[in-house]
Amino acid sequence: MIPNPERTYHDPLHGAIALNSSDPTESLLIRLIDTPAFQRLRRVKQLGPASLTFHGAESSRFTHSLGVMAIARRAFDRIASLYPQLHTYRPVVLVAALLHDIGHGPFSHVGEDVFGTHHEHWTCRILQEHPSIRDALDAFDPTLIQQIEQVYLKQHPIPLVWQLVSSQLDCDRLDYLMRDSYFTGASYGKIDLDRILMAMRYDPVTQQLVVVRKGMAAIEHYLIVRYFMYAQVYNHPKNIAASWILAQAMVRARELLQIGQLQADDTVSAWLGKVASDSTHSLDDRLSLADYLAADDGVFTYHMQRWQNNPDPILADLCRRFVDRDLFKALDVTHLPAVEQQSLLQKAHYWLANAGFAADYYAGLQVSFSRGYTLYQRGIKFLTPTGLEEISNLSPLVRTLTNPYQRVWLIYPREIEKSILITNADKS
Amino acid sequence: MIPNPERTYHDPLHGAIALNSSDPTESLLIRLIDTPAFQRLRRVKQLGPASLTFHGAESSRFTHSLGVMAIARRAFDRIASLYPQLHTYRPVVLVAALLHDIGHGPFSHVGEDVFGTHHEHWTCRILQEHPSIRDALDAFDPTLIQQIEQVYLKQHPIPLVWQLVSSQLDCDRLDYLMRDSYFTGASYGKIDLDRILMAMRYDPVTQQLVVVRKGMAAIEHYLIVRYFMYAQVYNHPKNIAASWILAQAMVRARELLQIGQLQADDTVSAWLGKVASDSTHSLDDRLSLADYLAADDGVFTYHMQRWQNNPDPILADLCRRFVDRDLFKALDVTHLPAVEQQSLLQKAHYWLANAGFAADYYAGLQVSFSRGYTLYQRGIKFLTPTGLEEISNLSPLVRTLTNPYQRVWLIYPREIEKSILITNADKS
Amino acid sequence: MIPNPERTYHDPLHGAIALNSSDPTESLLIRLIDTPAFQRLRRVKQLGPASLTFHGAESSRFTHSLGVMAIARRAFDRIASLYPQLHTYRPVVLVAALLHDIGHGPFSHVGEDVFGTHHEHWTCRILQEHPSIRDALDAFDPTLIQQIEQVYLKQHPIPLVWQLVSSQLDCDRLDYLMRDSYFTGASYGKIDLDRILMAMRYDPVTQQLVVVRKGMAAIEHYLIVRYFMYAQVYNHPKNIAASWILAQAMVRARELLQIGQLQADDTVSAWLGKVASDSTHSLDDRLSLADYLAADDGVFTYHMQRWQNNPDPILADLCRRFVDRDLFKALDVTHLPAVEQQSLLQKAHYWLANAGFAADYYAGLQVSFSRGYTLYQRGIKFLTPTGLEEISNLSPLVRTLTNPYQRVWLIYPREIEKSILITNADKS
Amino acid sequence: MIPNPERTYHDPLHGAIALNSSDPTESLLIRLIDTPAFQRLRRVKQLGPASLTFHGAESSRFTHSLGVMAIARRAFDRIASLYPQLHTYRPVVLVAALLHDIGHGPFSHVGEDVFGTHHEHWTCRILQEHPSIRDALDAFDPTLIQQIEQVYLKQHPIPLVWQLVSSQLDCDRLDYLMRDSYFTGASYGKIDLDRILMAMRYDPVTQQLVVVRKGMAAIEHYLIVRYFMYAQVYNHPKNIAASWILAQAMVRARELLQIGQLQADDTVSAWLGKVASDSTHSLDDRLSLADYLAADDGVFTYHMQRWQNNPDPILADLCRRFVDRDLFKALDVTHLPAVEQQSLLQKAHYWLANAGFAADYYAGLQVSFSRGYTLYQRGIKFLTPTGLEEISNLSPLVRTLTNPYQRVWLIYPREIEKSILITNADKS
Repeated sequence: MIPNPERTYHDPLHGAIALNSSDPTESLLIRLIDTPAFQRLRRVKQLGPASLTFHGAESSRFTHSLGVMAIARRAFDRIASLYPQLHTYRPVVLVAALLHDIGHGPFSHVGEDVFGTHHEHWTCRILQEHPSIRDALDAFDPTLIQQIEQVYLKQHPIPLVWQLVSSQLDCDRLDYLMRDSYFTGASYGKIDLDRILMAMRYDPVTQQLVVVRKGMAAIEHYLIVRYFMYAQVYNHPKNIAASWILAQAMVRARELLQIGQLQADDTVSAWLGKVASDSTHSLDDRLSLADYLAADDGVFTYHMQRWQNNPDPILADLCRRFVDRDLFKALDVTHLPAVEQQSLLQKAHYWLANAGFAADYYAGLQVSFSRGYTLYQRGIKFLTPTGLEEISNLSPLVRTLTNPYQRVWLIYPREIEKSILITNADKS
Repeated sequence: MIPNPERTYHDPLHGAIALNSSDPTESLLIRLIDTPAFQRLRRVKQLGPASLTFHGAESSRFTHSLGVMAIARRAFDRIASLYPQLHTYRPVVLVAALLHDIGHGPFSHVGEDVFGTHHEHWTCRILQEHPSIRDALDAFDPTLIQQIEQVYLKQHPIPLVWQLVSSQLDCDRLDYLMRDSYFTGASYGKIDLDRILMAMRYDPVTQQLVVVRKGMAAIEHYLIVRYFMYAQVYNHPKNIAASWILAQAMVRARELLQIGQLQADDTVSAWLGKVASDSTHSLDDRLSLADYLAADDGVFTYHMQRWQNNPDPILADLCRRFVDRDLFKALDVTHLPAVEQQSLLQKAHYWLANAGFAADYYAGLQVSFSRGYTLYQRGIKFLTPTGLEEISNLSPLVRTLTNPYQRVWLIYPREIEKSILITNADKS
Repeated sequence: MIPNPERTYHDPLHGAIALNSSDPTESLLIRLIDTPAFQRLRRVKQLGPASLTFHGAESSRFTHSLGVMAIARRAFDRIASLYPQLHTYRPVVLVAALLHDIGHGPFSHVGEDVFGTHHEHWTCRILQEHPSIRDALDAFDPTLIQQIEQVYLKQHPIPLVWQLVSSQLDCDRLDYLMRDSYFTGASYGKIDLDRILMAMRYDPVTQQLVVVRKGMAAIEHYLIVRYFMYAQVYNHPKNIAASWILAQAMVRARELLQIGQLQADDTVSAWLGKVASDSTHSLDDRLSLADYLAADDGVFTYHMQRWQNNPDPILADLCRRFVDRDLFKALDVTHLPAVEQQSLLQKAHYWLANAGFAADYYAGLQVSFSRGYTLYQRGIKFLTPTGLEEISNLSPLVRTLTNPYQRVWLIYPREIEKSILITNADKS
Repeated sequence: MIPNPERTYHDPLHGAIALNSSDPTESLLIRLIDTPAFQRLRRVKQLGPASLTFHGAESSRFTHSLGVMAIARRAFDRIASLYPQLHTYRPVVLVAALLHDIGHGPFSHVGEDVFGTHHEHWTCRILQEHPSIRDALDAFDPTLIQQIEQVYLKQHPIPLVWQLVSSQLDCDRLDYLMRDSYFTGASYGKIDLDRILMAMRYDPVTQQLVVVRKGMAAIEHYLIVRYFMYAQVYNHPKNIAASWILAQAMVRARELLQIGQLQADDTVSAWLGKVASDSTHSLDDRLSLADYLAADDGVFTYHMQRWQNNPDPILADLCRRFVDRDLFKALDVTHLPAVEQQSLLQKAHYWLANAGFAADYYAGLQVSFSRGYTLYQRGIKFLTPTGLEEISNLSPLVRTLTNPYQRVWLIYPREIEKSILITNADKS
């Protein structure tokens, strides 16, 4: 029989993602995918607790990472066919794309807020310290790890190389917007990947990723979709409430652990910090790589399921609410002056205390940002007859998106909703 | 066997559109669809000559009209389930939606520019004068024609009734954006119909169509998609060039007809005007209903195919270029001062004359507008805690879209492209 | 500015089909697409009159031809990356794929039945005689025309070359099944193109196109979809009735032409045959290439619109029914013995005559075949550990499809429907 | 502000699933969805460990259950609009559809094989014993629980009622085929839901769900898709291997627990049975409802992650392989006589023992069935002029599917693959 040297991942968005094991770079990708550190991403949901709000949002960082690599390969191979001098950068682009999220921990970005971790830090540690990853990379090219880190730090000498992985128009964003919209059922989230990839070019002078004019509408649309996905999905009030309840549960768990009243395994104990002084160091400094990698969504969810029976009524109740999706409410109080927001929060605390709740864990103010487009890290550059031009100079729509969109939410349990709504209505 | 009282149209966008012949309104819809006047829409392409630029854009006004009716039925039935007092308006909404384009002639909107006709005028004449349509409507309800006209004139006493058919957020636009994007393959053109329909409400005070806040993103997105479709598809330079060449061919044909040097059948002769004095009246005034309905895309395309052999070299060449898609070029000269645009056109005429072309038919300036959103006819109103609020007051993105986007194009044949590009490059 | 050497066709099914003008083969494809002979395919609907039954089926042979070429390029480039010795056949495969339907005439396959033409015959004549096509091919490679003909005749020395274009698993069928299902809205018609293309291999021993085992389900499914599309779309009773009425109109027109009582232009006159003796030669032998290419759907539709006013009531009525979609009925009489089918037809003729119809033009028996899978031309071969194996030996489902599915229809106008149904009910 | 009485679930397959809280039945559905027992389905993957093979298959029983209810509502409301006497059965149909999988435990069907549980048993216990579910149902209608059980037992007096939920053409299958194909990216898995729902009817005589002839192709296609999904996805060799390794890990864990050498929480201990004698009763009999509901995919995955550090090398290794997706191989040995299959297994055991493996846990034979269509429970009935007809009498394709498709797999670790393949090749 003819040997079939391919590994194929059938992806709902990108179709058949075939890796050719006789190509050295793609063979390396296969080896990396098969490591425990990469497989662990199957147990980290792409959008943390967002599936509590959008029931379809159940996919993992694993599927997203494959997708980013698949888009990066399409984008890079197309550009490199026009500029063959780039071909030497194929391994660093593809591997950096595949591994860009390998450092994500429990609940992805939400977990970073809750625990104060930074996935970029852990991505670098995994590259350098995790034997199966490090050895595979070193065996391919002893300088590869350093190159990949240059990508993640946006310091690679060829800007295009890091721009494909991490910029205002990178393969990471292209995949997650497509994927999150596919799984959440937000039809307005579809982007025109073909037209975007067709418009990408390399500028030999500045060595940057640039785009040609005919891709303008597709790229404007992509930025607008990104804005919508932040405003409507990632920052949906229910999602903010779910994240907040998770954070409160962890705060309470940490307190109980430190006074010896919490059952947790070694991993969770390490994450929560066994003694109060632990909090003087960030988790990034304090955790061992093994403890970091031992954690995932399931490990914490498991503990929260168990803690529903903890004698502490606060922890037990917060966990129950998260596990059973009996979430808090989030009221938009953006329009109120800061002092009235605080006053409303104090009233909420008062009603909560009256109703027998430990008020601090049950109400708070939370700020959300919807990021549209920023000039950060060079922005998106168009080729024009008169040179490179940054997109917000060309597009009034994109210029509109550069204004950050911030909202302030009052979080509280449904038990005091009536009082909140009556008070708020008086203000309007 | 169980009688199956349904007529089903399987639509690629809306799935099975089933009409229940035991429901009087839907039975009327079936009867109207079966009239020659409505079947004629199969021979009028939705986007005129745009399929020369986007090869998939081959669908007809017939399929679009079914789609508008299908969306209107979903929208109306949902709103009427919340406000049963509206139920009486179901026939007028559905019939007005179905027939809203029945007055379109050859090449749809492009034809209107070329011939100076107005489809709204003919829609009303067909309602009143075409026996199969008029009799069906009168038999259902003697006041129905008048009600439908009120819809088309935006004078129906219940604004919601005409707003569903013709407004900034009407079922016509919802269908054509979905459909044109489906057939042209413009992925950024997908809109979130479900979320839009879910957000629609009736305001009993003002009797208008309004939307609730949670539909904001889907509606902002719809308006942006509309803007993109204008900028990228409807006003694509190739499409402007194709429309221009069609217009020039008709100008020339009219001239030849009036000096007795053109073969054309009665229909086309009537459209072009047999004597010069015909041009003192608009076609809308001059044409009989029979002559109007006898024309369609195919009738004119057929004549242009034949005119390729006309002794007049100008007409023959223009027709050949249109039929064989040997189109003119369209150069964006928006950035030039008007005087320089004119100067460039004069140069084009000079080179054309030198090259033996009848310059006036071969080069010209053409203006295109991309419509985003206007306040025209009440705009889109959101329900807010403090009353109705027009969308551009709430959305910076929509506010950006209210600025019209105008471009000026120089049209010319490829034969003088080199001269044009060299001259233009000097200016940049 | 960076030169952009690409021509891009945005296709609703295949996304961006980009042709690179600096690649000699793809540059040739661009040149061929731009010929009048190829552009003419825009005026030939893919499914003839089927849009009268499935309103979305309005797309042309032009879009299909681009699609076949796009799939052939994907399939060939993938196989050739595994078997580089095949690379030399890229031009013949791609050009043969693009041009495979260039010989189609008015109403595609339905027209072939009506007029007795064969598009394969005309494809070869166009290759050899049409200057713009022939010159482009000869300039590329003087043997190319001959190679392409070998493909169409299934005589190319490398069977894979013709199998990609014309076999039980060719790119023609892959595209038309995808496209027809996309446009008619038949969701069951989606095929898994990725998995099919991934399974294709070249067998160096027999030089055939073969498939590997893991593609089995996708290929079984493709064959079943093909069967369904025949049974449900192409052979839909309404479509059979529409084709029949078209054929009858042409029969009558031919008769009137021969007695000098029909107005028709040169093209249509040539197609119908001006004198009775014309019918002793087939149209393929009799028509000039110019007359063949001058015809398309629009030319005949135009004549039928005009013939609605012909003094002959039969022709006028048949044309009116076709133009206004007042179609005949098609009753499935497959279950009846042949003698009863004939008897029913005679009764129909009797009732028609009584009702004042010219019976022969108004009722008839029509047979339809649904082709599933045949062993014709080597079938589909799978690579197995014990050698090549034909798919119907491996798949019981495919074996079931090898049985042809034939139905017999009685065609008649609605005016005698009651009599027909009563009589038929008695038989059941 | 206008009260918005809707709860909306945006579903990637069915669009907006809106529940109207002012409709008593839909209000009950909302209340049921909000129970902990239903929310728990978020932690049970629809396809158990299949996401290890198809990375997109990460969705849960929760999303599927909403989907089944959404389809059941469409199907029922349509049928009931034709047969208003059915309206009284709306609550039982919708609730039975929503709750039909509430009894599923860890790893869904794979878990049932591993643990010997039956989700139908637990569904009934949850209805009767879980306060939040039972009280909600009883408050709506004291007989509702009994009616629902009649549905699940296929004993409801109106067969249509249970057939919509559980039959050869039920809403459960319609949703899971659509959903699994959407998430796994198996394009051939798309079904034509619209055409299927349009064809459904009620037969007043037998009170059954029946279908009309025009739905034939869509239903044949659905049955074929089901066959393919079994053959290609559910019974994919990698999935069989993943399930097998999970089962072996549980076998080993049980042994260790019984000799006191396993750490597990109360829930897992209860599931595995603390003493050997536990195995004399089935888990269904032995487990408390609380212990059953406390378990989910995450609880067992969590334990397997921890058991990677168990001193027992067999358990530790099996768990590591499952967690890190270092799966076993599955070789199709269907073609071998049973005695040779056994002989191959013995050789595998021998090589394993030589290589230091505990052979019994590392190699085995596994049988898979692909179910196409069975006559079981009345099959699918078509309305024909001569009465009801079972589909396999009408369709040769479906008749082909009635043959069960069984395969036998040899499971073994990659460490002995070479020996296995050499031996097997000798046999071929």
